Amino acid sequence: MTSHKPRVVIIGAGFAGVEAAKKLGKHGVNVLLIDRHNYHTFIPMLYQVATAVLYPHQIVYPLRRLFRGLPTVNFLQADVEKIDFDRQIIYAKNIAIDYNYLVIATGSRSQYLGVTGAEENSLPMRTLTEAIAIRNHILSCFEQAIKVTDEAEINRLLTFVIVGGGATGVELAGSLNELIHSLQKDYPNLNCDRARVIILQSGRLFPSYPEELGSYTEKWLRRHGVKVHLNSKVSKVTPEAVYLEDDTAIFTDTVIWTAGVLAATPQMKQSVNTADKDKIIVEQTLQMCGHKNVYGVGDVSYIDSQELNGVAQEAIQQGETAADNILRQMDGKLPKPFDYFNKGRLAIIGKHAGVGKIGKFALKGFIAWFLWLEVHLLYLPGIRNRLGVLFNWLKYYFCGEGASRIIISTDALMDDRERGRDREERGQGEI
Amino acid sequence: MTSHKPRVVIIGAGFAGVEAAKKLGKHGVNVLLIDRHNYHTFIPMLYQVATAVLYPHQIVYPLRRLFRGLPTVNFLQADVEKIDFDRQIIYAKNIAIDYNYLVIATGSRSQYLGVTGAEENSLPMRTLTEAIAIRNHILSCFEQAIKVTDEAEINRLLTFVIVGGGATGVELAGSLNELIHSLQKDYPNLNCDRARVIILQSGRLFPSYPEELGSYTEKWLRRHGVKVHLNSKVSKVTPEAVYLEDDTAIFTDTVIWTAGVLAATPQMKQSVNTADKDKIIVEQTLQMCGHKNVYGVGDVSYIDSQELNGVAQEAIQQGETAADNILRQMDGKLPKPFDYFNKGRLAIIGKHAGVGKIGKFALKGFIAWFLWLEVHLLYLPGIRNRLGVLFNWLKYYFCGEGASRIIISTDALMDDRERGRDREERGQGEI
Repeated sequence: MTSHKPRVVIIGAGFAGVEAAKKLGKHGVNVLLIDRHNYHTFIPMLYQVATAVLYPHQIVYPLRRLFRGLPTVNFLQADVEKIDFDRQIIYAKNIAIDYNYLVIATGSRSQYLGVTGAEENSLPMRTLTEAIAIRNHILSCFEQAIKVTDEAEINRLLTFVIVGGGATGVELAGSLNELIHSLQKDYPNLNCDRARVIILQSGRLFPSYPEELGSYTEKWLRRHGVKVHLNSKVSKVTPEAVYLEDDTAIFTDTVIWTAGVLAATPQMKQSVNTADKDKIIVEQTLQMCGHKNVYGVGDVSYIDSQELNGVAQEAIQQGETAADNILRQMDGKLPKPFDYFNKGRLAIIGKHAGVGKIGKFALKGFIAWFLWLEVHLLYLPGIRNRLGVLFNWLKYYFCGEGASRIIISTDALMDDRERGRDREERGQGEI
Repeated sequence: MTSHKPRVVIIGAGFAGVEAAKKLGKHGVNVLLIDRHNYHTFIPMLYQVATAVLYPHQIVYPLRRLFRGLPTVNFLQADVEKIDFDRQIIYAKNIAIDYNYLVIATGSRSQYLGVTGAEENSLPMRTLTEAIAIRNHILSCFEQAIKVTDEAEINRLLTFVIVGGGATGVELAGSLNELIHSLQKDYPNLNCDRARVIILQSGRLFPSYPEELGSYTEKWLRRHGVKVHLNSKVSKVTPEAVYLEDDTAIFTDTVIWTAGVLAATPQMKQSVNTADKDKIIVEQTLQMCGHKNVYGVGDVSYIDSQELNGVAQEAIQQGETAADNILRQMDGKLPKPFDYFNKGRLAIIGKHAGVGKIGKFALKGFIAWFLWLEVHLLYLPGIRNRLGVLFNWLKYYFCGEGASRIIISTDALMDDRERGRDREERGQGEI
């Protein structure tokens, strides 16, 4: 199908893709946004779903609703299978979509760094479903622990290991540590002091923050009972243990993997230049080398000599630049280079404590914690979500309990997935 | 393990089981409540989760939290495998639990009435997960419909068939009909008038209500676009169609099965007398024939010459009676017969319309709708849930949209289920 107005296809509805679609939609450009989910996920708050502070629906927003006010933005729920740059066509199951401009905003995926058994035996936390799975798993460990009598097994069930000491790993460790100790009143017959969170990091905590903040975080976590193992490299993960390179074994039923990411590059018919971590190399204008009408934004792309850390702000600003540059191209102008304006970074490490860096200022403690809550509440899409999150935070910080600690069985969902697969196989057509 | 104080084991945390546990807990009796889920489900509102009016967590309540104030009530998340009445032991995976008194409150399951393909090709709606699966499936049908060009396939995707014209089927039909028409603004390129809800019923609608209410409902649903097929018996369900006994075929990708229930009787080592629908026959005191210390309550049991319909009120009152009778037995007194006090029944059929019967009065229209909302809000456990539900209802009845229309992918949950299975297989011990 071809349309008269040029069509911009955006693959991926993360921070970068959504921002580009919004900007183009506001200028009346014909946009097709494609994602495998029908919602946008606010990734920075995933760990609060995993630790039952927030409800799953509170950190996602339906994409069709997000773009209701922008009639030229269309959405398609699909898995992109391949891109053909020469013919300017994207293939999904039984569908071929042509484009005039393309924005690749497919984000990242977990990197297991070649560690034996890591992918099979650890839980990732990159999607909403994975965060729910972690919540279910943690609560199930407690339900299981009160049923068994073997001391070693109880210890294994109540030991929670987080691999990776970046922002995700640290935030999760702090929040999980609070969860497991607040569970005491639900399990009066279980000694919850036996439960422990262990964080493993190959170097120091928060490697992309000033060293001072890393050591502050380390002390804070230790003081609150988290076991922090620095300079520890994981060599193997089994269903019952994590092994370190010095042959130490930590027996556990729960390994959450937050160490490292790879670009989630879609399959492409033509080969493209990639940098470290499979990232697509793009020019300073975010255009793909050799394809002036294709942009790479967010975690999936690499810009030479720019120091970026894969945070939401970078993706949002790149999405905006890509949209601006497409608008310029449509007007016959030359695209401009991407210029990142660093508004600062913040991370929570526990109740009333955070760390951050804004401009030259390193922040820590209460002020960083409070700013984190403010900023994330502001950026979260949807008034209903903001109100709900605020309510849960008040409940959590004053009463020690945010969301219901429910374990939703997945039997019936499985069947529907099978159905879904059948249905998709029958699907056909072109857009 | 034996304890000095007599132990009451309750299997099933539905309305009957929870009520019995509460009453016994308030009297300081040693209770062990067992359920396969860690939460209580407010079944009468399941259909509002299936149609995205409410969020899943709003109609469930964590059992451990429910009983925090009653220290003698313990909870165990487990699947009961077998009951041995002679040895007074219940077996779950790797666990054996002895009891002095037992309350069987295991509820009901779907009955497919021997219809070929019904179990494989239709969606049940008896648990929270099943309701979520229905919501996901309905929304996926719309996402799929905009991708295909074949007219017959679009019709099949947008045809939603509900089998069963009792309260569940009718409430679901009305709510689903509202959902599919409100989706027009999310799918501007799809003609949502093509979407239709069909309800199939072997006799008349609401067979357990006065005939006047059945015909009122029928007219109301027809006026709002629902296709009502009365006196229609389903003979076969395939992945693409429902066949009626007169050989009519209705082509559809969605069949929701609400017709008929069977008792969800646990496996028992000794044979027991059962009535119609596999129900355990109990005496007027709710005691199992021949086992004076075993009670059968709620949907799982049958009491001779009592006219009951399987509604929440009956289960609650039976749970209360069983608890009273156990307390009487502990005091050396004789149990009293169950005496049902019918407070009335209510059902919603759509926006601002309901039907009901309170005492001799048949209610219909706005007043029945309003009463339904009031009563269900009052009975729902938890203030947070009540506030949330009230908020969603206001949003739904004033803005046409209650909960977010998100399709949560289930890939990661599956893996955790597998893990759960492994873990359980390793589990052992006695309580």
